[in-house]
Amino acid sequence: MNFMQALRTRWQQADTLVCVGLDPEPARFPAQFANDPDAVFNFCRAIVDATAGYACSFKPQIAHFAALGAEGALTRLIAHIHAAHPGIPVILDSKRGDIGSTAQHYAAEAFDRYAADAVTANPYLGRDSVQPFLDRADRGVVILCRTSNPGAGDLQDLVIDGRPLYQHVAEKVAREWNGHGNCALVVGATWPAQLKEVRAIVGDVPFLVPGVGAQGGDVEAVVTNAKTADGTGLMVSSSRAILYAGNGQDFAAAAADAARALRDEINRYR
Amino acid sequence: MNFMQALRTRWQQADTLVCVGLDPEPARFPAQFANDPDAVFNFCRAIVDATAGYACSFKPQIAHFAALGAEGALTRLIAHIHAAHPGIPVILDSKRGDIGSTAQHYAAEAFDRYAADAVTANPYLGRDSVQPFLDRADRGVVILCRTSNPGAGDLQDLVIDGRPLYQHVAEKVAREWNGHGNCALVVGATWPAQLKEVRAIVGDVPFLVPGVGAQGGDVEAVVTNAKTADGTGLMVSSSRAILYAGNGQDFAAAAADAARALRDEINRYR
Repeated sequence: MNFMQALRTRWQQADTLVCVGLDPEPARFPAQFANDPDAVFNFCRAIVDATAGYACSFKPQIAHFAALGAEGALTRLIAHIHAAHPGIPVILDSKRGDIGSTAQHYAAEAFDRYAADAVTANPYLGRDSVQPFLDRADRGVVILCRTSNPGAGDLQDLVIDGRPLYQHVAEKVAREWNGHGNCALVVGATWPAQLKEVRAIVGDVPFLVPGVGAQGGDVEAVVTNAKTADGTGLMVSSSRAILYAGNGQDFAAAAADAARALRDEINRYR
Repeated sequence: MNFMQALRTRWQQADTLVCVGLDPEPARFPAQFANDPDAVFNFCRAIVDATAGYACSFKPQIAHFAALGAEGALTRLIAHIHAAHPGIPVILDSKRGDIGSTAQHYAAEAFDRYAADAVTANPYLGRDSVQPFLDRADRGVVILCRTSNPGAGDLQDLVIDGRPLYQHVAEKVAREWNGHGNCALVVGATWPAQLKEVRAIVGDVPFLVPGVGAQGGDVEAVVTNAKTADGTGLMVSSSRAILYAGNGQDFAAAAADAARALRDEINRYR
Protein backbone atom coordinates (compact mmCIF):
# COMPACT_ATOMS: atom_id res chain seq x y z
CA MET A 1 0.00 0.00 0.00
CA ASN A 2 1.17 3.54 -0.78
CA PHE A 3 -0.19 5.68 2.05
CA MET A 4 -0.99 8.83 0.09
CA GLN A 5 -2.55 6.94 -2.82
CA ALA A 6 -4.60 4.81 -0.44
CA LEU A 7 -5.78 7.85 1.48
CA ARG A 8 -6.85 9.71 -1.66
CA THR A 9 -8.59 6.63 -3.05
CA ARG A 10 -10.38 6.14 0.25
CA TRP A 11 -11.54 9.80 0.41
CA GLN A 12 -13.08 9.45 -3.04
CA GLN A 13 -14.47 5.92 -2.99
CA ALA A 14 -15.79 5.80 0.58
CA ASP A 15 -16.74 9.49 0.61
CA THR A 16 -15.50 10.01 4.16
CA LEU A 17 -12.90 12.20 5.86
CA VAL A 18 -13.24 10.50 9.28
CA CYS A 19 -10.13 9.09 10.96
CA VAL A 20 -11.16 6.67 13.71
CA GLY A 21 -8.75 6.96 16.64
CA LEU A 22 -8.10 3.80 18.64
CA ASP A 23 -7.28 4.81 22.23
CA PRO A 24 -8.19 1.79 24.37
CA GLU A 25 -8.87 2.50 28.04
CA PRO A 26 -10.00 -0.72 29.72
CA ALA A 27 -11.74 1.17 32.54
CA ARG A 28 -14.17 2.52 29.94
CA PHE A 29 -14.85 -0.78 28.16
CA PRO A 30 -18.39 -2.24 28.27
CA ALA A 31 -19.07 -4.80 30.97
CA GLN A 32 -18.83 -7.80 28.64
CA PHE A 33 -15.05 -7.27 28.45
CA ALA A 34 -14.57 -7.39 32.23
CA ASN A 35 -13.16 -10.92 32.30
CA ASP A 36 -11.70 -11.02 28.79
CA PRO A 37 -7.91 -11.49 28.94
CA ASP A 38 -7.72 -10.22 25.34
CA ALA A 39 -10.07 -7.30 25.94
CA VAL A 40 -7.88 -4.61 24.35
CA PHE A 41 -7.71 -6.45 21.04
CA ASN A 42 -11.30 -7.66 21.07
CA PHE A 43 -12.73 -4.24 21.94
CA CYS A 44 -10.66 -2.45 19.29
CA ARG A 45 -11.42 -5.08 16.66
CA ALA A 46 -15.14 -4.70 17.26
CA ILE A 47 -14.83 -0.92 16.88
CA VAL A 48 -12.78 -1.30 13.70
CA ASP A 49 -15.23 -3.71 12.10
CA ALA A 50 -18.22 -1.56 13.03
CA THR A 51 -16.75 1.75 11.84
CA ALA A 52 -14.68 0.71 8.79
CA GLY A 53 -17.34 1.82 6.34
CA TYR A 54 -17.06 5.38 7.65
CA ALA A 55 -13.28 5.55 8.06
CA CYS A 56 -10.71 7.07 5.70
CA SER A 57 -8.03 5.86 8.11
CA PHE A 58 -7.52 4.27 11.52
CA LYS A 59 -5.19 5.79 14.09
CA PRO A 60 -4.09 3.60 17.02
CA GLN A 61 -2.43 5.72 19.74
CA ILE A 62 0.55 3.74 20.96
CA ALA A 63 0.76 5.04 24.56
CA HIS A 64 -2.61 3.48 25.29
CA PHE A 65 -1.18 0.08 24.34
CA ALA A 66 2.31 0.61 25.79
CA ALA A 67 1.03 1.60 29.24
CA LEU A 68 -0.73 -1.79 29.35
CA GLY A 69 2.14 -3.81 27.90
CA ALA A 70 -0.21 -4.59 25.01
CA GLU A 71 2.22 -4.47 22.09
CA GLY A 72 0.95 -7.86 20.97
CA ALA A 73 -2.63 -6.61 20.79
CA LEU A 74 -1.48 -3.59 18.76
CA THR A 75 0.39 -5.80 16.31
CA ARG A 76 -2.60 -8.10 15.83
CA LEU A 77 -5.00 -5.15 15.56
CA ILE A 78 -3.06 -3.54 12.70
CA ALA A 79 -2.75 -6.93 10.98
CA HIS A 80 -6.50 -7.36 11.34
CA ILE A 81 -7.18 -3.95 9.76
CA HIS A 82 -4.94 -4.79 6.79
CA ALA A 83 -6.55 -8.22 6.34
CA ALA A 84 -10.21 -7.39 6.94
CA HIS A 85 -10.29 -3.85 5.57
CA PRO A 86 -7.67 -3.60 2.84
CA GLY A 87 -7.30 -0.10 1.44
CA ILE A 88 -7.88 1.68 4.75
CA PRO A 89 -4.49 3.05 5.87
CA VAL A 90 -3.29 2.82 9.46
CA ILE A 91 -1.52 5.76 11.12
CA LEU A 92 0.51 4.81 14.18
CA ASP A 93 0.12 7.80 16.49
CA SER A 94 3.40 7.77 18.38
CA LYS A 95 4.75 11.33 17.89
CA ARG A 96 8.31 10.03 17.80
CA GLY A 97 11.41 12.13 17.29
CA ASP A 98 15.07 11.49 18.01
CA ILE A 99 18.50 11.91 16.42
CA GLY A 100 19.09 10.20 13.09
CA SER A 101 20.54 6.86 14.20
CA THR A 102 17.79 6.38 16.78
CA ALA A 103 15.10 7.66 14.42
CA GLN A 104 15.93 4.71 12.17
CA HIS A 105 14.92 2.41 15.01
CA TYR A 106 11.66 4.33 15.44
CA ALA A 107 11.01 3.95 11.71
CA ALA A 108 11.62 0.21 12.08
CA GLU A 109 9.23 0.14 15.05
CA ALA A 110 6.40 1.83 13.17
CA PHE A 111 6.77 0.51 9.64
CA ASP A 112 8.40 -2.93 10.04
CA ARG A 113 7.39 -4.18 13.46
CA TYR A 114 3.83 -2.79 13.44
CA ALA A 115 3.36 -2.53 9.65
CA ALA A 116 1.77 0.90 9.96
CA ASP A 117 1.19 2.85 6.75
CA ALA A 118 2.01 6.20 8.38
CA VAL A 119 3.37 7.57 11.64
CA THR A 120 3.02 10.84 13.55
CA ALA A 121 6.32 12.64 14.23
CA ASN A 122 7.53 15.58 16.30
CA PRO A 123 9.61 18.20 14.43
CA TYR A 124 11.49 19.75 17.40
CA LEU A 125 14.76 17.94 16.63
CA GLY A 126 14.82 19.06 13.00
CA ARG A 127 14.94 17.45 9.62
CA ASP A 128 17.47 14.67 10.22
CA SER A 129 15.30 13.37 13.06
CA VAL A 130 12.43 12.88 10.60
CA GLN A 131 14.53 11.78 7.61
CA PRO A 132 14.34 8.00 8.27
CA PHE A 133 10.54 8.33 8.13
CA LEU A 134 10.62 10.59 5.04
CA ASP A 135 12.90 8.12 3.24
CA ARG A 136 10.15 5.50 3.27
CA ALA A 137 8.41 7.04 0.27
CA ASP A 138 5.46 4.66 0.38
CA ARG A 139 4.69 5.50 4.01
CA GLY A 140 3.16 8.67 5.38
CA VAL A 141 4.80 11.07 7.85
CA VAL A 142 2.30 13.16 9.78
CA ILE A 143 4.23 16.00 11.40
CA LEU A 144 3.03 18.01 14.40
CA CYS A 145 2.35 21.60 13.36
CA ARG A 146 -0.31 23.27 15.55
CA THR A 147 -1.77 20.91 18.13
CA SER A 148 -5.18 21.01 19.80
CA ASN A 149 -4.21 21.08 23.48
CA PRO A 150 -4.38 24.07 25.86
CA GLY A 151 -0.58 24.42 26.14
CA ALA A 152 0.05 24.16 22.39
CA GLY A 153 0.89 27.84 22.14
CA ASP A 154 3.70 27.69 24.71
CA LEU A 155 6.18 27.05 21.91
CA GLN A 156 4.13 26.76 18.72
CA ASP A 157 2.81 30.35 18.87
CA LEU A 158 6.14 32.05 19.56
CA VAL A 159 6.71 34.61 16.80
CA ILE A 160 9.74 34.47 14.50
CA ASP A 161 10.07 37.10 11.77
CA GLY A 162 6.45 38.09 12.18
CA ARG A 163 4.99 34.58 12.03
CA PRO A 164 4.36 31.91 14.67
CA LEU A 165 6.61 28.87 14.91
CA TYR A 166 3.90 26.51 13.67
CA GLN A 167 3.77 28.38 10.35
CA HIS A 168 7.53 27.99 9.98
CA VAL A 169 7.07 24.24 10.56
CA ALA A 170 4.33 24.14 7.93
CA GLU A 171 6.56 25.92 5.44
CA LYS A 172 9.58 23.69 6.10
CA VAL A 173 7.48 20.57 5.67
CA ALA A 174 5.79 21.74 2.46
CA ARG A 175 8.88 23.27 0.82
CA GLU A 176 11.79 21.18 2.13
CA TRP A 177 10.73 17.90 3.76
CA ASN A 178 8.04 16.76 1.31
CA GLY A 179 10.25 15.67 -1.59
CA HIS A 180 8.54 12.28 -1.75
CA GLY A 181 5.09 13.81 -1.37
CA ASN A 182 4.51 11.67 1.72
CA CYS A 183 4.07 14.36 4.37
CA ALA A 184 0.94 15.41 6.21
CA LEU A 185 0.47 17.82 9.12
CA VAL A 186 -1.29 17.71 12.48
CA VAL A 187 -3.36 20.89 12.84
CA GLY A 188 -5.87 20.95 15.69
CA ALA A 189 -9.60 21.56 15.28
CA THR A 190 -9.69 23.91 18.24
CA TRP A 191 -8.10 26.72 16.20
CA PRO A 192 -10.01 27.06 12.88
CA ALA A 193 -8.32 30.33 11.86
CA GLN A 194 -4.97 28.58 12.12
CA LEU A 195 -6.21 25.77 9.89
CA LYS A 196 -6.90 28.36 7.20
CA GLU A 197 -3.48 29.99 7.59
CA VAL A 198 -1.68 26.65 7.35
CA ARG A 199 -3.77 25.58 4.36
CA ALA A 200 -2.71 28.76 2.56
CA ILE A 201 0.95 27.89 3.17
CA VAL A 202 1.00 24.20 2.23
CA GLY A 203 -1.33 23.75 -0.75
CA ASP A 204 -2.96 20.33 -0.66
CA VAL A 205 -0.76 18.63 1.94
CA PRO A 206 -3.22 16.53 3.97
CA PHE A 207 -4.13 17.53 7.53
CA LEU A 208 -4.78 15.20 10.43
CA VAL A 209 -7.20 17.23 12.55
CA PRO A 210 -7.70 16.12 16.16
CA GLY A 211 -9.86 18.03 18.57
CA VAL A 212 -13.44 17.65 17.36
CA GLY A 213 -15.71 15.87 19.81
CA ALA A 214 -14.22 15.58 23.30
CA GLN A 215 -11.96 18.61 22.83
CA GLY A 216 -14.72 20.85 21.48
CA GLY A 217 -13.61 21.71 17.93
CA ASP A 218 -16.38 22.83 15.56
CA VAL A 219 -16.83 20.61 12.48
CA GLU A 220 -18.22 23.30 10.17
CA ALA A 221 -15.34 25.66 10.97
CA VAL A 222 -12.80 22.88 10.50
CA VAL A 223 -14.07 21.76 7.12
CA THR A 224 -14.67 25.19 5.63
CA ASN A 225 -11.27 26.47 6.77
CA ALA A 226 -9.14 23.43 6.05
CA LYS A 227 -10.51 21.52 3.04
CA THR A 228 -8.70 21.52 -0.26
CA ALA A 229 -10.25 22.75 -3.52
CA ASP A 230 -11.67 19.29 -4.27
CA GLY A 231 -13.35 19.04 -0.87
CA THR A 232 -10.87 16.56 0.62
CA GLY A 233 -7.44 17.05 2.21
CA LEU A 234 -8.57 16.19 5.73
CA MET A 235 -8.52 13.34 8.19
CA VAL A 236 -10.82 14.56 10.96
CA SER A 237 -9.83 12.42 13.90
CA SER A 238 -12.22 11.31 16.59
CA SER A 239 -11.32 8.78 19.25
CA ARG A 240 -13.20 8.85 22.55
CA ALA A 241 -16.45 10.21 21.06
CA ILE A 242 -16.61 7.15 18.81
CA LEU A 243 -15.00 4.46 21.00
CA TYR A 244 -17.12 5.20 24.04
CA ALA A 245 -20.33 6.36 22.32
CA GLY A 246 -22.09 3.44 23.98
CA ASN A 247 -21.32 1.38 27.03
CA GLY A 248 -23.69 -1.57 26.68
CA GLN A 249 -24.04 -4.69 24.52
CA ASP A 250 -24.61 -2.37 21.56
CA PHE A 251 -21.37 -0.40 21.97
CA ALA A 252 -20.15 -1.27 18.46
CA ALA A 253 -23.40 -0.12 16.85
CA ALA A 254 -23.21 3.08 18.90
CA ALA A 255 -19.65 3.62 17.67
CA ALA A 256 -20.77 3.09 14.09
CA ASP A 257 -23.59 5.60 14.57
CA ALA A 258 -21.14 8.16 15.97
CA ALA A 259 -18.70 7.64 13.09
CA ARG A 260 -21.46 7.87 10.50
CA ALA A 261 -22.86 11.02 12.11
CA LEU A 262 -19.42 12.63 12.04
CA ARG A 263 -18.95 11.62 8.39
CA ASP A 264 -22.31 13.11 7.50
CA GLU A 265 -21.67 16.34 9.40
CA ILE A 266 -18.29 16.74 7.69
CA ASN A 267 -19.75 16.02 4.27
CA ARG A 268 -22.40 18.70 4.76
CA TYR A 269 -19.66 21.35 4.57
CA ARG A 270 -17.33 19.90 1.91
CA MET B 1 14.15 6.50 45.10
CA ASN B 2 13.88 10.25 44.53
CA PHE B 3 15.58 10.89 41.20
CA MET B 4 17.19 14.24 41.97
CA GLN B 5 18.39 13.17 45.41
CA ALA B 6 19.77 9.93 44.03
CA LEU B 7 21.57 11.73 41.22
CA ARG B 8 23.17 14.28 43.55
CA THR B 9 24.19 11.55 45.99
CA ARG B 10 25.67 9.53 43.15
CA TRP B 11 27.65 12.51 41.78
CA GLN B 12 29.22 13.02 45.20
CA GLN B 13 29.74 9.48 46.45
CA ALA B 14 30.83 7.83 43.21
CA ASP B 15 32.63 10.94 41.93
CA THR B 16 31.38 10.46 38.38
CA LEU B 17 29.29 12.46 35.89
CA VAL B 18 29.09 9.66 33.31
CA CYS B 19 25.66 8.52 32.10
CA VAL B 20 25.96 5.12 30.42
CA GLY B 21 23.56 4.94 27.48
CA LEU B 22 22.09 1.52 26.68
CA ASP B 23 21.39 1.38 22.92
CA PRO B 24 21.47 -2.31 22.02
CA GLU B 25 22.14 -3.13 18.36
CA PRO B 26 22.39 -6.92 17.97
CA ALA B 27 24.41 -6.60 14.73
CA ARG B 28 27.20 -5.04 16.81
CA PHE B 29 27.16 -7.55 19.67
CA PRO B 30 30.26 -9.76 20.21
CA ALA B 31 30.19 -13.18 18.61
CA GLN B 32 29.35 -15.02 21.83
CA PHE B 33 25.80 -13.59 21.66
CA ALA B 34 25.15 -14.90 18.14
CA ASN B 35 22.94 -17.80 19.26
CA ASP B 36 21.65 -16.32 22.51
CA PRO B 37 17.85 -15.90 22.38
CA ASP B 38 18.12 -13.44 25.29
CA ALA B 39 21.08 -11.54 23.80
CA VAL B 40 19.66 -8.04 24.26
CA PHE B 41 19.19 -8.52 27.99
CA ASN B 42 22.39 -10.46 28.55
CA PHE B 43 24.56 -8.01 26.60
CA CYS B 44 23.09 -4.98 28.35
CA ARG B 45 23.30 -6.62 31.79
CA ALA B 46 26.98 -7.36 31.24
CA ILE B 47 27.58 -3.72 30.26
CA VAL B 48 25.64 -2.47 33.28
CA ASP B 49 27.52 -4.69 35.73
CA ALA B 50 30.90 -3.76 34.23
CA THR B 51 30.31 0.00 34.14
CA ALA B 52 28.18 0.61 37.25
CA GLY B 53 31.15 1.85 39.27
CA TYR B 54 31.66 4.67 36.80
CA ALA B 55 28.01 5.58 36.18
CA CYS B 56 25.97 8.39 37.76
CA SER B 57 22.98 7.08 35.81
CA PHE B 58 21.95 4.57 33.15
CA LYS B 59 19.94 5.61 30.11
CA PRO B 60 18.23 2.85 28.08
CA GLN B 61 17.01 4.23 24.72
CA ILE B 62 13.59 2.71 24.15
CA ALA B 63 13.54 2.68 20.31
CA HIS B 64 16.41 0.20 20.32
CA PHE B 65 14.26 -2.19 22.33
CA ALA B 66 10.94 -1.41 20.64
CA ALA B 67 12.26 -2.00 17.13
CA LEU B 68 13.16 -5.53 18.28
CA GLY B 69 9.97 -6.18 20.22
CA ALA B 70 12.18 -6.44 23.29
CA GLU B 71 9.98 -4.74 25.88
CA GLY B 72 10.46 -7.73 28.16
CA ALA B 73 14.23 -7.36 28.05
CA LEU B 74 13.91 -3.66 28.85
CA THR B 75 11.68 -4.36 31.83
CA ARG B 76 14.08 -6.97 33.21
CA LEU B 77 17.10 -4.77 32.56
CA ILE B 78 15.72 -1.87 34.58
CA ALA B 79 14.70 -4.26 37.36
CA HIS B 80 18.23 -5.66 37.35
CA ILE B 81 19.76 -2.18 37.67
CA HIS B 82 17.51 -1.38 40.63
CA ALA B 83 18.28 -4.71 42.32
CA ALA B 84 22.00 -5.02 41.63
CA HIS B 85 22.98 -1.36 41.68
CA PRO B 86 20.61 0.44 44.02
CA GLY B 87 21.14 4.18 44.10
CA ILE B 88 21.99 4.52 40.39
CA PRO B 89 18.98 6.16 38.74
CA VAL B 90 17.60 4.97 35.40
CA ILE B 91 16.52 7.48 32.75
CA LEU B 92 14.18 6.03 30.12
CA ASP B 93 15.16 7.85 26.93
CA SER B 94 11.89 7.93 25.03
CA LYS B 95 11.44 11.65 24.19
CA ARG B 96 7.69 11.34 24.57
CA GLY B 97 5.22 14.16 24.17
CA ASP B 98 1.46 14.20 23.57
CA ILE B 99 -1.69 15.94 24.76
CA GLY B 100 -2.54 15.70 28.43
CA SER B 101 -4.76 12.62 28.50
CA THR B 102 -2.33 10.63 26.38
CA ALA B 103 0.69 11.98 28.26
CA GLN B 104 -0.73 10.29 31.36
CA HIS B 105 -0.40 6.97 29.55
CA TYR B 106 3.19 7.79 28.62
CA ALA B 107 3.90 8.59 32.28
CA ALA B 108 2.40 5.22 33.20
CA GLU B 109 4.58 3.55 30.55
CA ALA B 110 7.81 5.08 31.86
CA PHE B 111 7.27 5.20 35.60
CA ASP B 112 4.87 2.33 36.34
CA ARG B 113 5.40 -0.25 33.63
CA TYR B 114 9.18 0.18 33.32
CA ALA B 115 9.88 1.63 36.80
CA ALA B 116 12.21 4.27 35.37
CA ASP B 117 13.38 7.01 37.72
CA ALA B 118 13.31 9.67 35.00
CA VAL B 119 12.16 10.10 31.41
CA THR B 120 13.19 12.31 28.50
CA ALA B 121 10.39 14.49 27.09
CA ASN B 122 9.82 16.72 24.06
CA PRO B 123 8.49 20.24 24.81
CA TYR B 124 6.92 21.06 21.41
CA LEU B 125 3.35 20.44 22.62
CA GLY B 126 3.72 22.73 25.62
CA ARG B 127 3.36 22.49 29.35
CA ASP B 128 0.21 20.37 29.64
CA SER B 129 1.90 17.67 27.53
CA VAL B 130 4.68 17.42 30.14
CA GLN B 131 2.51 17.96 33.22
CA PRO B 132 1.77 14.26 33.93
CA PHE B 133 5.53 13.72 34.11
CA LEU B 134 6.13 16.85 36.21
CA ASP B 135 3.43 15.78 38.66
CA ARG B 136 5.46 12.74 39.66
CA ALA B 137 7.63 14.78 42.00
CA ASP B 138 9.95 11.87 42.88
CA ARG B 139 10.72 11.19 39.21
CA GLY B 140 12.90 13.22 36.89
CA VAL B 141 11.76 14.93 33.67
CA VAL B 142 14.61 15.56 31.26
CA ILE B 143 13.33 18.03 28.66
CA LEU B 144 14.84 18.52 25.20
CA CYS B 145 16.39 21.97 24.95
CA ARG B 146 19.28 22.11 22.42
CA THR B 147 20.03 18.73 20.91
CA SER B 148 23.28 17.42 19.43
CA ASN B 149 22.21 16.42 15.92
CA PRO B 150 22.98 18.27 12.66
CA GLY B 151 19.37 19.39 12.11
CA ALA B 152 18.87 20.60 15.69
CA GLY B 153 18.92 24.23 14.60
CA ASP B 154 16.04 23.85 12.13
CA LEU B 155 13.60 24.84 14.87
CA GLN B 156 15.67 25.21 18.05
CA ASP B 157 17.79 28.10 16.71
CA LEU B 158 14.92 30.18 15.32
CA VAL B 159 15.09 33.60 16.98
CA ILE B 160 12.22 34.99 19.05
CA ASP B 161 12.64 38.41 20.69
CA GLY B 162 16.37 38.30 20.09
CA ARG B 163 16.98 34.83 21.54
CA PRO B 164 16.83 31.34 20.02
CA LEU B 165 13.91 29.02 20.76
CA TYR B 166 16.03 26.67 22.87
CA GLN B 167 16.75 29.49 25.33
CA HIS B 168 13.03 30.17 25.65
CA VAL B 169 12.56 26.45 26.42
CA ALA B 170 15.32 26.65 29.05
CA GLU B 171 13.68 29.65 30.66
CA LYS B 172 10.20 28.11 30.67
CA VAL B 173 11.50 24.94 32.27
CA ALA B 174 13.55 26.72 34.94
CA ARG B 175 10.98 29.41 35.82
CA GLU B 176 7.61 27.75 35.19
CA TRP B 177 7.79 23.96 34.86
CA ASN B 178 10.24 23.13 37.66
CA GLY B 179 7.97 23.67 40.64
CA HIS B 180 8.84 20.27 42.09
CA GLY B 181 12.54 20.71 41.33
CA ASN B 182 12.45 17.55 39.23
CA CYS B 183 13.41 18.97 35.82
CA ALA B 184 16.62 18.54 33.86
CA LEU B 185 17.51 19.58 30.30
CA VAL B 186 19.05 17.89 27.28
CA VAL B 187 21.80 20.15 25.91
CA GLY B 188 24.13 18.62 23.34
CA ALA B 189 27.90 18.45 23.68
CA THR B 190 28.41 19.52 20.08
CA TRP B 191 27.62 23.15 20.93
CA PRO B 192 29.70 24.17 24.00
CA ALA B 193 28.88 27.88 23.74
CA GLN B 194 25.21 27.00 23.97
CA LEU B 195 25.84 24.94 27.09
CA LYS B 196 27.24 28.07 28.73
CA GLU B 197 24.29 30.22 27.66
CA VAL B 198 21.77 27.71 28.97
CA ARG B 199 23.68 27.28 32.23
CA ALA B 200 23.48 31.04 32.76
CA ILE B 201 19.69 30.91 32.35
CA VAL B 202 18.80 27.91 34.51
CA GLY B 203 21.10 27.99 37.53
CA ASP B 204 21.86 24.48 38.75
CA VAL B 205 19.21 22.54 36.81
CA PRO B 206 21.01 19.33 35.75
CA PHE B 207 21.98 18.79 32.12
CA LEU B 208 21.94 15.51 30.23
CA VAL B 209 24.67 16.02 27.64
CA PRO B 210 24.73 13.64 24.66
CA GLY B 211 27.17 14.02 21.83
CA VAL B 212 30.62 13.26 23.26
CA GLY B 213 32.28 10.25 21.68
CA ALA B 214 30.64 9.10 18.44
CA GLN B 215 29.16 12.56 17.74
CA GLY B 216 32.44 14.40 18.33
CA GLY B 217 31.72 16.69 21.29
CA ASP B 218 34.77 17.90 23.26
CA VAL B 219 34.82 16.85 26.93
CA GLU B 220 36.89 19.77 28.21
CA ALA B 221 34.62 22.30 26.49
CA VAL B 222 31.52 20.57 27.82
CA VAL B 223 32.64 20.42 31.42
CA THR B 224 34.09 23.92 31.66
CA ASN B 225 31.04 25.47 29.99
CA ALA B 226 28.29 23.47 31.63
CA LYS B 227 29.31 22.47 35.17
CA THR B 228 27.68 24.05 38.18
CA ALA B 229 29.63 25.94 40.86
CA ASP B 230 30.23 22.74 42.85
CA GLY B 231 31.67 20.92 39.82
CA THR B 232 28.59 18.74 39.20
CA GLY B 233 25.30 19.45 37.38
CA LEU B 234 26.05 17.16 34.45
CA MET B 235 25.23 13.73 33.14
CA VAL B 236 27.62 13.32 30.22
CA SER B 237 26.01 10.59 28.17
CA SER B 238 27.96 8.07 26.14
CA SER B 239 26.37 5.06 24.49
CA ARG B 240 28.07 3.52 21.47
CA ALA B 241 31.62 4.51 22.52
CA ILE B 242 31.14 2.48 25.72
CA LEU B 243 28.86 -0.34 24.53
CA TYR B 244 30.95 -1.23 21.52
CA ALA B 245 34.42 -0.32 22.85
CA GLY B 246 35.37 -3.98 22.40
CA ASN B 247 33.99 -6.74 20.23
CA GLY B 248 35.62 -9.84 21.71
CA GLN B 249 35.31 -11.99 24.83
CA ASP B 250 36.55 -8.99 26.81
CA PHE B 251 33.84 -6.58 25.59
CA ALA B 252 32.62 -5.87 29.13
CA ALA B 253 36.10 -5.02 30.36
CA ALA B 254 36.59 -2.79 27.33
CA ALA B 255 33.31 -1.04 28.13
CA ALA B 256 34.44 -0.54 31.72
CA ASP B 257 37.74 0.91 30.51
CA ALA B 258 35.90 3.32 28.21
CA ALA B 259 33.53 4.44 30.97
CA ARG B 260 36.39 4.91 33.44
CA ALA B 261 38.41 6.86 30.88
CA LEU B 262 35.46 9.16 30.24
CA ARG B 263 34.91 9.63 33.99
CA ASP B 264 38.58 10.50 34.45
CA GLU B 265 38.64 12.91 31.53
CA ILE B 266 35.52 14.68 32.82
CA ASN B 267 36.93 14.86 36.35
CA ARG B 268 40.12 16.52 35.07
CA TYR B 269 38.08 19.61 34.20
CA ARG B 270 35.60 19.79 37.08
